[in-house]
Amino acid sequence: MVAPTRAEQLAKLSTLARAFHETIPHNLALGLELVEFGDGLAVMRLPYRTDLIGDPNSGVLHGGAISSLLDATFGLAAFMALTEPTRIATLDLRIDYLKPATPGMAVHAKAECYRRTRTIAFVRGFAYHDDEAAPIAAGSATFMISAGPPPMGTRPEGSAGSTP
Amino acid sequence: MVAPTRAEQLAKLSTLARAFHETIPHNLALGLELVEFGDGLAVMRLPYRTDLIGDPNSGVLHGGAISSLLDATFGLAAFMALTEPTRIATLDLRIDYLKPATPGMAVHAKAECYRRTRTIAFVRGFAYHDDEAAPIAAGSATFMISAGPPPMGTRPEGSAGSTP
Amino acid sequence: MVAPTRAEQLAKLSTLARAFHETIPHNLALGLELVEFGDGLAVMRLPYRTDLIGDPNSGVLHGGAISSLLDATFGLAAFMALTEPTRIATLDLRIDYLKPATPGMAVHAKAECYRRTRTIAFVRGFAYHDDEAAPIAAGSATFMISAGPPPMGTRPEGSAGSTP
Amino acid sequence: MVAPTRAEQLAKLSTLARAFHETIPHNLALGLELVEFGDGLAVMRLPYRTDLIGDPNSGVLHGGAISSLLDATFGLAAFMALTEPTRIATLDLRIDYLKPATPGMAVHAKAECYRRTRTIAFVRGFAYHDDEAAPIAAGSATFMISAGPPPMGTRPEGSAGSTP
Repeated sequence: MVAPTRAEQLAKLSTLARAFHETIPHNLALGLELVEFGDGLAVMRLPYRTDLIGDPNSGVLHGGAISSLLDATFGLAAFMALTEPTRIATLDLRIDYLKPATPGMAVHAKAECYRRTRTIAFVRGFAYHDDEAAPIAAGSATFMISAGPPPMGTRPEGSAGSTP
Repeated sequence: MVAPTRAEQLAKLSTLARAFHETIPHNLALGLELVEFGDGLAVMRLPYRTDLIGDPNSGVLHGGAISSLLDATFGLAAFMALTEPTRIATLDLRIDYLKPATPGMAVHAKAECYRRTRTIAFVRGFAYHDDEAAPIAAGSATFMISAGPPPMGTRPEGSAGSTP
Repeated sequence: MVAPTRAEQLAKLSTLARAFHETIPHNLALGLELVEFGDGLAVMRLPYRTDLIGDPNSGVLHGGAISSLLDATFGLAAFMALTEPTRIATLDLRIDYLKPATPGMAVHAKAECYRRTRTIAFVRGFAYHDDEAAPIAAGSATFMISAGPPPMGTRPEGSAGSTP
Repeated sequence: MVAPTRAEQLAKLSTLARAFHETIPHNLALGLELVEFGDGLAVMRLPYRTDLIGDPNSGVLHGGAISSLLDATFGLAAFMALTEPTRIATLDLRIDYLKPATPGMAVHAKAECYRRTRTIAFVRGFAYHDDEAAPIAAGSATFMISAGPPPMGTRPEGSAGSTP
């Protein structure tokens, strides 16, 4: 038996991530869109919607909507850093809010899994409108990777994270 | 003219927080409920709803929903630590995910503003079902407090936070 | 064979922590002192010393000295939450600086491991002079707990943390 | 009177940072070296020394030494993002420990102030041996910038951070 190439692994992970994304109620409720994947990389998009507003006077999106976007994108980047599909769970999430989102504009998030050990994935990334160099928020997260290849749909002990 | 007592300040802040809460689209969309306030304290509740699920197989809530609950509760606790109504903006938010939420159960968050300077409020708190001693998530946040008493509805430079 | 009681476990952990502390060059160089342990609890003390100053004009301690104190105390609290001596490694550390330390005064740190899973320990705590209610800094950390009971002196893959 | 160019501002900031660095006892005690500055950029170096060891069996540096290095480098990058010399104070510091430092090797830290508002500087960076692409630790910090140009040597209310 031949070990899969990295390209084959990524193809399998991408297919699963895409299929799984469309079954996650919270992602659908927010209107989160998958934009792009790669090896340890993910880009997602949150279209502007009035029910995501946090400040009714200015129309600025709620910080929680930005957090949800980053959380989901970070989880996807961690998933795309695996060698085979495995449950992952968010251990912690940290976000710096750099400037208010512009009312009416969609927000993108781009995340990179920049370090992976056998059990932990470290991810960083940014939220921005169209220009990555003008970020709205910056964040980082760590994810726990399950030891074995368990069935999807259950959760590892001690964590409550997002699978993409 | 007599300076207001702390009780009078808190009464004013509570009235505004309650009125403002009901105008925030994202809070209403999530179904966030105000449970309790006090001096630098806030408790909110996120009822379980299927459209907030992050894992369709287990029915566990999305990490982003827990983040939104904590973000909103932290902002409210910071607001309740003010002496007069002022714009506040989240500078950063950090969350540790301790264990998965139980499907079907509402989640509470309790937050305390444990330190305030003239310009910064430091808040910590937990998310839990019914028992604070068995937390689902722990978090902390810092908020920037505007210098003056500006009109609600605009945002201070350089931050994108939530006002309660 | 009888399983050890929690008191017996703690006695063993305490003895090792005390012995190990005195062999850690960085702890000795900083002058860190063990004040107290308990079940998932630790208190350490950093005496004021002029070579730890960060601001030569005011004599205020360097933020890095406070970070080192918190890091060491968090690691000790995590160690004291184990059931048997095991290697632990810091995954991440977060510190909020609440106010400057007072020149000339020792700093204490108190930490609690408030949640432990099989592989992760979650710790929080404060640095303060004499009064815990007037903290200088607040922090939290997560530690990875090794799977087996390996020999001390090596480090688990993918982490660089402090063992107490 | 002509406003200074950015190059003139940076020359002034660099001169002060260099002079100030040599007066900070904790930096000297750790042996921290200034390697490079630029516009919102800083590189520092921590030579390996046996009194900075955190694990006496392996000789791995203490996490607290890495934290101190990152804290100092982050503060320097924030300082180099100013337009004129001003007091800055660390609000919070977050570090992910990615892998153990190699015994016997110096550690570098490189930091970038990637966003500045009137009152807050946001900094991120890495610690590594010689290869930035193989980081030992990743971190981020926020700094509060004083409103005016006060005399060095005092500290703004409510913070305890490091000035470079």
